[in-house]
Amino acid sequence: MIKLPDKVIRLFEGKNFANIATLMPDGSPQVTTVWVDYKEGYILVNTAEGRVKDRNVRRDPRVAISIESAENPYIRASVMGKVVEVTHDGAEDHIDALAMKYMGKERYPWRAPGERRVIMKIAPNRVYTNPD
Amino acid sequence: MIKLPDKVIRLFEGKNFANIATLMPDGSPQVTTVWVDYKEGYILVNTAEGRVKDRNVRRDPRVAISIESAENPYIRASVMGKVVEVTHDGAEDHIDALAMKYMGKERYPWRAPGERRVIMKIAPNRVYTNPD
Repeated sequence: MIKLPDKVIRLFEGKNFANIATLMPDGSPQVTTVWVDYKEGYILVNTAEGRVKDRNVRRDPRVAISIESAENPYIRASVMGKVVEVTHDGAEDHIDALAMKYMGKERYPWRAPGERRVIMKIAPNRVYTNPD
Repeated sequence: MIKLPDKVIRLFEGKNFANIATLMPDGSPQVTTVWVDYKEGYILVNTAEGRVKDRNVRRDPRVAISIESAENPYIRASVMGKVVEVTHDGAEDHIDALAMKYMGKERYPWRAPGERRVIMKIAPNRVYTNPD
């Protein structure tokens, strides 16, 4: 695990969309746009239990994430890492916090019936970013 | 190979950033933000010869690409596919055309000395998109 540079942490803390790549059962990549968060060295992604991403990281925890500044898409970073934990703990509150960050809404508006949220906690191993 | 829905083609034709995932030698994913283009059923990505992406797809052609509308990031698509060709043919003109599309500049301003551009031609196999 590495410590992310401050400017990359700011990208993850800001209201910026990220793209996460996971591995399908046959080893091919899958990539989707996600809300994202940073806490104490880890990148956090919130998804619903049973989704492709969730199933993929439980089988193979290796992921990659890219993020770009919404204000200037040429300020960006690409991170490679591992999902070290997938947890329900705090995941419902966390998706509401993300809804506030990204939409200004107190509650996440797109909950599906029976859906259980999970937090994927990602430890970064490598980071590429553009020069200052 | 599948035909992409019209609304997904419009995303790739528009001035929208995409994120492409490729596979590293150890099978882990890598993802980077790219300019993107669409032509006759194929998604085109322009990169420099010898870059990580270029080396990755020559070893394993399986890729995934996500794209979101710059105007409304909740209009988005995720595509899985294969690189069917990596070519120098037209790649220098193509990067200039992308510089025009994304920056309004006639010539791509970030050529490095000795850099040779290549076009990665991607055949889509699966697509996910959000409901209309």
